[in-house]
Amino acid sequence: MSNSFGNIFTITTFGESHGEAIGGVIGGCPSGIEIDIEAVQNELNRRKPGQSKIVTQRKEPDEVQFLSGIFEGKTTGASIGFIIKNVHQRSNDYFHIKDSFRPSHADYTYTKKYGHRDYRGGGRTSARETANWVVGGAVAKQVIPSIKIHAYTSSVGDLFLEKPYQDLDFSKIEDNIVRCPDDAIAEQMILKIDKIRKQGDTIGGTVTCVIQNVPVGLGEPIFDKLHAQLGKAMLSINAVKGFEYGSGFCGAKMRGSEHNDMFNADGSTKSNLSGGIQGGISNGMDIYFRVAFKPVATIMQAQQTIDKDGNMVEMHGKGRHDPCVVPRAVPIVEAMAALVLADFTLLNK
Amino acid sequence: MSNSFGNIFTITTFGESHGEAIGGVIGGCPSGIEIDIEAVQNELNRRKPGQSKIVTQRKEPDEVQFLSGIFEGKTTGASIGFIIKNVHQRSNDYFHIKDSFRPSHADYTYTKKYGHRDYRGGGRTSARETANWVVGGAVAKQVIPSIKIHAYTSSVGDLFLEKPYQDLDFSKIEDNIVRCPDDAIAEQMILKIDKIRKQGDTIGGTVTCVIQNVPVGLGEPIFDKLHAQLGKAMLSINAVKGFEYGSGFCGAKMRGSEHNDMFNADGSTKSNLSGGIQGGISNGMDIYFRVAFKPVATIMQAQQTIDKDGNMVEMHGKGRHDPCVVPRAVPIVEAMAALVLADFTLLNK
Amino acid sequence: MSNSFGNIFTITTFGESHGEAIGGVIGGCPSGIEIDIEAVQNELNRRKPGQSKIVTQRKEPDEVQFLSGIFEGKTTGASIGFIIKNVHQRSNDYFHIKDSFRPSHADYTYTKKYGHRDYRGGGRTSARETANWVVGGAVAKQVIPSIKIHAYTSSVGDLFLEKPYQDLDFSKIEDNIVRCPDDAIAEQMILKIDKIRKQGDTIGGTVTCVIQNVPVGLGEPIFDKLHAQLGKAMLSINAVKGFEYGSGFCGAKMRGSEHNDMFNADGSTKSNLSGGIQGGISNGMDIYFRVAFKPVATIMQAQQTIDKDGNMVEMHGKGRHDPCVVPRAVPIVEAMAALVLADFTLLNK
Amino acid sequence: MSNSFGNIFTITTFGESHGEAIGGVIGGCPSGIEIDIEAVQNELNRRKPGQSKIVTQRKEPDEVQFLSGIFEGKTTGASIGFIIKNVHQRSNDYFHIKDSFRPSHADYTYTKKYGHRDYRGGGRTSARETANWVVGGAVAKQVIPSIKIHAYTSSVGDLFLEKPYQDLDFSKIEDNIVRCPDDAIAEQMILKIDKIRKQGDTIGGTVTCVIQNVPVGLGEPIFDKLHAQLGKAMLSINAVKGFEYGSGFCGAKMRGSEHNDMFNADGSTKSNLSGGIQGGISNGMDIYFRVAFKPVATIMQAQQTIDKDGNMVEMHGKGRHDPCVVPRAVPIVEAMAALVLADFTLLNK
Repeated sequence: MSNSFGNIFTITTFGESHGEAIGGVIGGCPSGIEIDIEAVQNELNRRKPGQSKIVTQRKEPDEVQFLSGIFEGKTTGASIGFIIKNVHQRSNDYFHIKDSFRPSHADYTYTKKYGHRDYRGGGRTSARETANWVVGGAVAKQVIPSIKIHAYTSSVGDLFLEKPYQDLDFSKIEDNIVRCPDDAIAEQMILKIDKIRKQGDTIGGTVTCVIQNVPVGLGEPIFDKLHAQLGKAMLSINAVKGFEYGSGFCGAKMRGSEHNDMFNADGSTKSNLSGGIQGGISNGMDIYFRVAFKPVATIMQAQQTIDKDGNMVEMHGKGRHDPCVVPRAVPIVEAMAALVLADFTLLNK
Repeated sequence: MSNSFGNIFTITTFGESHGEAIGGVIGGCPSGIEIDIEAVQNELNRRKPGQSKIVTQRKEPDEVQFLSGIFEGKTTGASIGFIIKNVHQRSNDYFHIKDSFRPSHADYTYTKKYGHRDYRGGGRTSARETANWVVGGAVAKQVIPSIKIHAYTSSVGDLFLEKPYQDLDFSKIEDNIVRCPDDAIAEQMILKIDKIRKQGDTIGGTVTCVIQNVPVGLGEPIFDKLHAQLGKAMLSINAVKGFEYGSGFCGAKMRGSEHNDMFNADGSTKSNLSGGIQGGISNGMDIYFRVAFKPVATIMQAQQTIDKDGNMVEMHGKGRHDPCVVPRAVPIVEAMAALVLADFTLLNK
Repeated sequence: MSNSFGNIFTITTFGESHGEAIGGVIGGCPSGIEIDIEAVQNELNRRKPGQSKIVTQRKEPDEVQFLSGIFEGKTTGASIGFIIKNVHQRSNDYFHIKDSFRPSHADYTYTKKYGHRDYRGGGRTSARETANWVVGGAVAKQVIPSIKIHAYTSSVGDLFLEKPYQDLDFSKIEDNIVRCPDDAIAEQMILKIDKIRKQGDTIGGTVTCVIQNVPVGLGEPIFDKLHAQLGKAMLSINAVKGFEYGSGFCGAKMRGSEHNDMFNADGSTKSNLSGGIQGGISNGMDIYFRVAFKPVATIMQAQQTIDKDGNMVEMHGKGRHDPCVVPRAVPIVEAMAALVLADFTLLNK
Repeated sequence: MSNSFGNIFTITTFGESHGEAIGGVIGGCPSGIEIDIEAVQNELNRRKPGQSKIVTQRKEPDEVQFLSGIFEGKTTGASIGFIIKNVHQRSNDYFHIKDSFRPSHADYTYTKKYGHRDYRGGGRTSARETANWVVGGAVAKQVIPSIKIHAYTSSVGDLFLEKPYQDLDFSKIEDNIVRCPDDAIAEQMILKIDKIRKQGDTIGGTVTCVIQNVPVGLGEPIFDKLHAQLGKAMLSINAVKGFEYGSGFCGAKMRGSEHNDMFNADGSTKSNLSGGIQGGISNGMDIYFRVAFKPVATIMQAQQTIDKDGNMVEMHGKGRHDPCVVPRAVPIVEAMAALVLADFTLLNK
């Protein structure tokens, strides 16, 4: 079931970048929940192309249409089908990759695995798929309204937002186009991305996500640990190369005597290097994690590559692409986190 | 099914640290495979306590007993049941945690989630469970004999093995007790762990894993990407805080023009920042990833903590614990990688 | 995942009778298969309302639209999304059941389980859902073209087609509107249904299904036996009350010495009371089974029932309903059988 | 996962008839439940061989050993591992089938599917596996103590217990060795089985199961309907050829006006042809169903069959076998029903 995610609250998706529509089925949503469809659309708008100068200039309205499972504004407990129509595709932009493999894209592996490939816009490998996840995540958020999920851009290239998340004002995340809640750093990030874009190049970055107001007890032991499922969710996002939570890779340099989180009398902890999870189960403290995104593989520069017959060919990026994926990844990270949290919340009932 | 892992080649486990036995069921193993039981036991011996001065001094023989699925030395296609008896447990070592919560352990979250907790030796939260995984992984390795999986200790605290894996001789991994294939660094690591142990403290570290000779085409799109499943597998291991593959978090600092892997005419790539996976599917290049382990939470020092009624109490580590989990984690990382690779190999048939 | 069926070849569905559209996602379909969309539509036409005088007179075009997973006429290995728009619904026909429970329908149980119910046309409980299955099954048939699946009406009320399937000409199934391949019996069945319809009543019946040219080895041991999965598939169809395969309930009256199927030298068997399956695995002989359908619960007669407050109310059937579900169930039985067979075929590779 | 059953409350099993032990892992059992191990053993004793003159005379103590998941008499929420040792096996009794295929057994299909077969005692295909299910079911019963499950022998060959279940006293089921709660019929059944046994033959039969005190709302829509999952569970039992619930195959002969169950003011129904389930969801009325078992394939008479090279050979039943499987199937049917009900109860929370 490689097109499905989740155990109880599930999403099953379909769709290629340049097909008629993408969409999915949300399963396991409890009945009686009022769905704010505008809120869902708002999340899609945060992800959609063309929203600023530092993202791809493709124009895709990305309007979600719900087809089932919601009646008189409320969920019925039935599966929720939805589609997002594909419009304004320029499939010709991709004709040059019909028989050639873009470096560090999935063209080669899909061709070897499946033989027959929809090359237009990357087909099923396109990050357009993540619009489906944003819909699923936006519904999931409404299933767990008390849990607060905030993601933001924490680095672009070697520009880091060094402040701990506790010092940030999450309400400022949407104040700038790079989605970094520190104005000064955000400005530098925007300049950097813009400069790299003009060079026909791309740049990587990281997204940090903080989940607050999580009840104690979410997550399952052994193979469905809360952080393992969060990690899998994040590693499912296109271009992700790494995931760390709590102290993360830094924790691997520390000693037990400095890493252990001491309890307060109420069960909360003084420090939170555990990242809100102990033994795979939430302990009520903030959950936080960081996700690494590689630079977008499509660059506006000539690259040598091969065609399907093994001939070396020169390829030049065409189409309208993101110079840095991170600003648009922010709502995707939140959506996948919401899917995981809603699923474990329902499992835990 | 939080006690199960895998889609086709599966493992389902049970067992507490101080119960009668731990064990599991391996499902989906093809028939007709000759199982080298000694090789399975050898993997268990690599993981078992008491093997050197830098690991816990508990004595557990960890002998695997296969109960089904193997007939006349070969698999029959039926599920393979196995147990590992628990012996030499000292449950009294844990009596002091019956009603108190060890800092940065799962005592608190399990108590809140389940109410009734087997506190002896950590119960189900004990890393003893990973012995089951080593059995499963050792069988998995025999299902995919052509794929080579090598893990090793790549850092202890701030001591890093800086050499790229290509410069290492994997045959030397077992030459020293810290499982680092560079003698000089290994010696420093051993000294460091020994020193920290004497201080009653613990230290974190990282394990790097390299998978070679992987056919093109393993992994599934969207939600069962090869690296997402590897990440979930690694994040399931006790004490893991992070996972990165290929360029990992470093890749997030790079530009597309330096990060893209250029193709050779045969479909291999000149560089391999992708880490052997493109779009979630293996491309035939080496897969490599890194796993971060926090320092063991049980330290031989006094710590303030709380009991189940919220009273502050002083606790002192008892029992026989690892000062650094990394040397014994090496075979566990390999085992989980083998489970993932065997599963995708069978899915890909 | 109660909206999904299958392990490798899967279908996940959504949709209410009077919503905007129903549809689903077909997962795990191998790549490179030429999909005959007209053949899919033909199967839908066999199921659709209004096709004859003995079925419901609702007019629903039931046109399938494929949205993904098929490129240049062939599958790509990506999930196949599809929708069937709902048109010509008359939701007013159902207004009388908004607050009352139709006897032997799911109105009561859905209201108790979910609270908020889409009553229009039965909502998610409507057999309209089975149109999704027919699409999935029609694609499945194209994945396993060598396996032949034939279902037919084998009884209506107490009118039975007594001939064994070996004496029937399956090419005649579509020659009459009741889908019984014996003209004489078919005529009686049609008369019977028509008479009952005029009385404002309904009648039950059975469908027999024969699967030929099945390779040896399909089915999995223990809990995914071929006949157990076929049984679950059939029992998922609305109005089904029973399933038997091979000798079925008659077999329970027999002795071993008369029931055992003796082998021929080539591994085939002289008799086939086993119904083509031994130990849950196909043996290469014909698979055959029988499915019992209760009479449709909506009758055009006054019935006493209760409303949601427990008041007794009189209810009279409205809308356009089937007097006997069996003729339209024939393609549904075939579709579910095809889904099961395709799934096990891919598992068995 | 063909060795696993269930979604939330799961059982995963292993074991061959003549291996060292059979056993399994029960997952998803809530914590804090006091487990009456004697009650579990009692259920095993109801299933075990040698308990009377009308069942196999093999002597197997079938003692369950729990290895995990229960601490101080109560479940901890961790997976429950258990084994049942195989003792008193006479593998020599099966040497004659090493290279030959018993008619209407799974020897042929397993050999074709897996190549390498454990022929001793039927290996994995042996109904000995059902002892694992009885353990799982006995634990499941303790998870849902208020739901009452009663199975009994309702026919042996053409001898039927015609009384409706409402007229039976379930407390008498264990009063006789055939497990039929009507003394007169039971006596005839016992005589019949005994006579057939002396003829070296076997006979089929049916088991009826009644589930009482079921809350409204158990079962999931579409593909996890309560009766579909019950049907799959029953069809997983060795020798089962058919399943019907409520009116079953008789319902297929009826008219809607006679089949519909009229409501009482409290939501209960006057009649119960629905069998306690509407739209796949329990309605609070008694659930009842009937399961058909074929005659045991091993008869104590000479039969012609083939060996693995296709030569015709004569075979004569050896070993100690049941002349009629039905009396020992009664606790198995109950166990599988309990597994299904516990699973849906936990899903429904």
